[in-house]
Amino acid sequence: MLLRSLLLLLLVIGLHNGARADDGYRLWLKYDQLPEAGLRKAWLARAKNINVDKNGGPTLQTAAKELQLGLQGLLGRPVPLGAAPGGRGSISLRVTAAPELGREGYRISSQNGKLEITGASEVGVLYGCFALLRQVQTGQLPDQLNLSSQPRIQYRMLNHWDNPNGTVERGYAGSSIWKWLELPERIDPRYQDYARANASIGLNGVVLNNVNASARYLTPEYLRKVAAVAGVLRPYGQRVYLSVLWAAPKVIGGLKTSDPLDPQVKAWWQARTGEIYKAIPDFGGFLVKANSEGEPGPQDYGRNHADGANMLAQALGGHDGIVMWRAFVYKAGSGDRFRQAYEEFQPLDGKFADKVLVQVKNGPIDFQAREPFHPLFGAMPRTPLVLEVQLTQEYLGFATHLVYLGPLIKECLEADTHSQGPGSTVAKVVDGSLEKHSLSGIAGVANIGSDRNWTGHLVGQANWYAFGRLAWDHSLRSEDVAREWASMTLTREPAALAAVLPVLNQSRSIYVRYTTPLGLHHIMGQDIHYGPEPWLARSARPDWTAVYYHKADAAGLGFDRTAAGSDALALYAPGARQRWANPATCPPDYLLWFHHVGWGQQLSTGRTLWDELTTRYYTGTDSVQWMQRQWEQAKPALDPALHADVAARLCIQHREAQWWRDACVLYFQTFARRPLPPGLAPPTRTLPEIKTLVDIYQLR
Amino acid sequence: MLLRSLLLLLLVIGLHNGARADDGYRLWLKYDQLPEAGLRKAWLARAKNINVDKNGGPTLQTAAKELQLGLQGLLGRPVPLGAAPGGRGSISLRVTAAPELGREGYRISSQNGKLEITGASEVGVLYGCFALLRQVQTGQLPDQLNLSSQPRIQYRMLNHWDNPNGTVERGYAGSSIWKWLELPERIDPRYQDYARANASIGLNGVVLNNVNASARYLTPEYLRKVAAVAGVLRPYGQRVYLSVLWAAPKVIGGLKTSDPLDPQVKAWWQARTGEIYKAIPDFGGFLVKANSEGEPGPQDYGRNHADGANMLAQALGGHDGIVMWRAFVYKAGSGDRFRQAYEEFQPLDGKFADKVLVQVKNGPIDFQAREPFHPLFGAMPRTPLVLEVQLTQEYLGFATHLVYLGPLIKECLEADTHSQGPGSTVAKVVDGSLEKHSLSGIAGVANIGSDRNWTGHLVGQANWYAFGRLAWDHSLRSEDVAREWASMTLTREPAALAAVLPVLNQSRSIYVRYTTPLGLHHIMGQDIHYGPEPWLARSARPDWTAVYYHKADAAGLGFDRTAAGSDALALYAPGARQRWANPATCPPDYLLWFHHVGWGQQLSTGRTLWDELTTRYYTGTDSVQWMQRQWEQAKPALDPALHADVAARLCIQHREAQWWRDACVLYFQTFARRPLPPGLAPPTRTLPEIKTLVDIYQLR
Repeated sequence: MLLRSLLLLLLVIGLHNGARADDGYRLWLKYDQLPEAGLRKAWLARAKNINVDKNGGPTLQTAAKELQLGLQGLLGRPVPLGAAPGGRGSISLRVTAAPELGREGYRISSQNGKLEITGASEVGVLYGCFALLRQVQTGQLPDQLNLSSQPRIQYRMLNHWDNPNGTVERGYAGSSIWKWLELPERIDPRYQDYARANASIGLNGVVLNNVNASARYLTPEYLRKVAAVAGVLRPYGQRVYLSVLWAAPKVIGGLKTSDPLDPQVKAWWQARTGEIYKAIPDFGGFLVKANSEGEPGPQDYGRNHADGANMLAQALGGHDGIVMWRAFVYKAGSGDRFRQAYEEFQPLDGKFADKVLVQVKNGPIDFQAREPFHPLFGAMPRTPLVLEVQLTQEYLGFATHLVYLGPLIKECLEADTHSQGPGSTVAKVVDGSLEKHSLSGIAGVANIGSDRNWTGHLVGQANWYAFGRLAWDHSLRSEDVAREWASMTLTREPAALAAVLPVLNQSRSIYVRYTTPLGLHHIMGQDIHYGPEPWLARSARPDWTAVYYHKADAAGLGFDRTAAGSDALALYAPGARQRWANPATCPPDYLLWFHHVGWGQQLSTGRTLWDELTTRYYTGTDSVQWMQRQWEQAKPALDPALHADVAARLCIQHREAQWWRDACVLYFQTFARRPLPPGLAPPTRTLPEIKTLVDIYQLR
Repeated sequence: MLLRSLLLLLLVIGLHNGARADDGYRLWLKYDQLPEAGLRKAWLARAKNINVDKNGGPTLQTAAKELQLGLQGLLGRPVPLGAAPGGRGSISLRVTAAPELGREGYRISSQNGKLEITGASEVGVLYGCFALLRQVQTGQLPDQLNLSSQPRIQYRMLNHWDNPNGTVERGYAGSSIWKWLELPERIDPRYQDYARANASIGLNGVVLNNVNASARYLTPEYLRKVAAVAGVLRPYGQRVYLSVLWAAPKVIGGLKTSDPLDPQVKAWWQARTGEIYKAIPDFGGFLVKANSEGEPGPQDYGRNHADGANMLAQALGGHDGIVMWRAFVYKAGSGDRFRQAYEEFQPLDGKFADKVLVQVKNGPIDFQAREPFHPLFGAMPRTPLVLEVQLTQEYLGFATHLVYLGPLIKECLEADTHSQGPGSTVAKVVDGSLEKHSLSGIAGVANIGSDRNWTGHLVGQANWYAFGRLAWDHSLRSEDVAREWASMTLTREPAALAAVLPVLNQSRSIYVRYTTPLGLHHIMGQDIHYGPEPWLARSARPDWTAVYYHKADAAGLGFDRTAAGSDALALYAPGARQRWANPATCPPDYLLWFHHVGWGQQLSTGRTLWDELTTRYYTGTDSVQWMQRQWEQAKPALDPALHADVAARLCIQHREAQWWRDACVLYFQTFARRPLPPGLAPPTRTLPEIKTLVDIYQLR
């Protein structure tokens, strides 16, 4: 009778759970029971209980609870928490003096049948717990576990471009997760899950608001709200930062100026900073977009970026906070946009105060699908530079294109600036090792919104994950990170992984091929940055058009940035620029970034420019179908809801790849006046038809 | 051993499910097992299987599956679906000729131990299934079940003010649920759950896009997307409608004009309508906001609203579609805004084509917390009028104020226009019975977004629910609808219900008291419509200020709309206006809508205007604390996550009620120059301090 009742109960629970498909909310923190009995058994023997000091702080308790939650789910059995020293099979969490681990590092060691997770700080232990869970989740056996790791970069941050009204600039995953009108009274449970996710990949800072900043956040009314969020993030080792509006002293301070050298302005910032630290004792600091795209800044008063940044640094006084000053500036009409950030910032090297880091985008234009590394890397040796990459897919197909960004981030990190000879990689600039900086930072523009699965496209989660992992350790291989993510998020079934991983790893190259092959850039739809618009010739600024960048004419295609052209190449160290300077040896992927190439010019690939260009558009588009086939192969091993979601988005991606292909091939053909190479079927629609389609998506 | 494994399995499932708090996603369709064994047993005896014709259409299959899903969950046992005629304990679903049920009505009858749900159409059966589930969910016993019902209003619609970029105008629950860039390939599973919710309360139409319309939706590119959504809604008995941009023939048609009398314009709309019906054979029709708040319209060409509406009706031709033409118009500077819609539309009565309905907001200004009924009701007897109410809380505290709108909707429906003598209620105008119209409609501006719980505030779900139930049957009591919703959504525990129901029922009156007592209106924060701003004296238009409406001066307060003033009262039938015309007998709730009253004037309440006004601000604010106490009382019976969510929002509501109280009391005191009545503690902050606070929320 009892048995019958139990079976019935299971059936009913099954009915309920069966209806509950995986909606992606849990990200990679899926603590479902491991399918392999042997693996479970092996870990169960090592995870009989968790031993933690009850007098430890909130971060230690958080670590223990997360480990318990994870192990219970993965192993399918309760794992008690206890303060008593555990015997064989116990896991101990310990904070211990271990200078070799740094402030945030951890060690997982195994001795006498006991596991120990140690860190020099509580947050180190927290990271260690997530590392252990990752071992279990990815199917590693507990034998001989001996791991230690510490971050190579100090400030590992997400930048949210979230507005106070709940919209997200360049966000494609719903509205902001920050519910400002509900704060501070209501703490959305989602904040904690967000903090868990960040902690699990080692992120330690969050800029809560858009760089096109509202002054609201600096008011007492909003600081109470910011403090409430900080309170949720704190036990997870994350500090909050704010983007600030340069004009805040005028807008909310009632001053007549925001001149950084004005004593009243200085005093205002100092007082305001004091209030911030009163509300948020571990406040991280400020992020500033100044004199860029219409934002106010110190140049409005004849001062320079260093004057502004240093004044803020001074306002931070003795507090443990930093200023991140963005180098994303480009003045209208002053020559090649490629050069402009360099021209404004490079001369300021050595002028910035100790607490200032200059935040530089990975490339010189604006988060294009592929860019050469930003020429400021290596060119400001006396200034710590934060690398800014964009996780939200502003120029990468929004939330309907599968683009794994590991390769893009790694490509930049591994780029060699040659600033101090070969091997002077961007990674070494950014982690401070090349130029011996004590401060170092990396920032990812978040792709996170209130969509149930956080990122719109499921693979957006992989980009969040990869950013965190590479921020922690830029020496990790992009492919290994992809494997970790997929194993934790999708499946560990070998055939399915074998089908999915190449899709992830090649997805960014494929995206480049069907949108901007051979170094084309900035030819997307006006304002919204969606779809193709290579014909865009008029805009509020010339450098917001497409023709400014591709320079197609009857002779050829591409932006001449050699000495004969804008000479932007000269901004790079000789060792770095030489690989790009000669069109004959320039890697095809960068060719049109630096050279105006004749349509009939034979490339290193053996094809003429025209043939290579069009072939890439076609093969790139066809590759999306390959991605679809691969994804279908993995179907039996994947959750049906997750599989269907991505499968549908791949259909959209293929439709839009055709859109890009047809638009660009037909448009550039009006200049090249050449037929498509044999084997490529001409588009079945006309250029005017495609333009109409583009127009539709730009209607109010 | 088996038993032990089963117990362990249950424990682990428990661990998982325990962590999964109620997030509100399921709305009122909670098919959790009934707690009462007796009730389960009684229903199980009547729900052994479901008998349905397998050759029935999709709506019938949908009905059967929903009934199965619901009963299995509620009763905790599988309920098989079968085509064979069932015996005792079976439930049969049948479509049958039953003219007395109308096209959408249903009957649930019980005979010889068998339940039968019949409808004259499949959608009637679907509504019957939801009605039966409602019986079970609300704890009714199956004995002698004999129910029949049919809707009193034909078109029962939600209007989504959703923009193509995913924002929602006046939306406070995240972004739009419609993911236009993902359509048509990806069908978000949420669309189906949305359709289920609407069907469960009898809604049969959905306007997908904002009345400030984009022309995108009329293009082939977007019609494919609209058709995909229509395909999800169709089995649930819902048709899609589109808001149209009047200028579409110019914007996307390439014409030089949008003049409704231009033959090319007519031909364009006719052709476009044909394409729409090719894509969506059951397309519902058009909603139009024209010549209102800057939107284009037929007046741009010297034509009137009827010219425009009739041209669209003609374009619909033989298709089963309608035109809903909004009467929400007010020309700048033409006297009292209260009168303007009437002045433009009343003279057109009798001029509209058969397929046109004129859509009129419940009140003459704009969805204020309390308005007198719109004077057009009863004044256009030859035109079917759609009642438009706003579920999204644009003027009602957004998503942080608990305001149950049942009483507001009922107050309007029950208002007596006296247009054909006493008893000529708005309800009878709207349902067509008073003036013998064959078309009738009601529209709710949706409060739905992508937030997990759909509506931001949990009680927003009650407003969605109440709108649907009252649209179906406006004779239902608001209190009964609240009880249904709470029983299905929160708890059926009697003490908890007894605590919560008064909160719901009084919440709207309380909101009025602490924001706009005694008939004050339109004194909220500029543009965002958040927080108080009674001092707002300058805006782009005078009728966008607050002083335009409250007319506070040294003598008194309120808008004189008698013959001595704007004479807006004259727009009402004598029987209707007489209750408002005399300040001595005018109900205090409407006093300042119609009269400028001296500060020292004694009201029917026995207090002076000043004392009554301030007392209401204070008692209204205190009542929020009463709401909090009541909510705490219900805590033991509620899901902890749902309880905590609402409890936190009530804290915000109390803080903001104090904000409204202090702002309005201090501001009006600058005119009244009187002390607060004894017992009311003066605000602890100054008017400038409060203005600063208001300013913060209006910063970029």
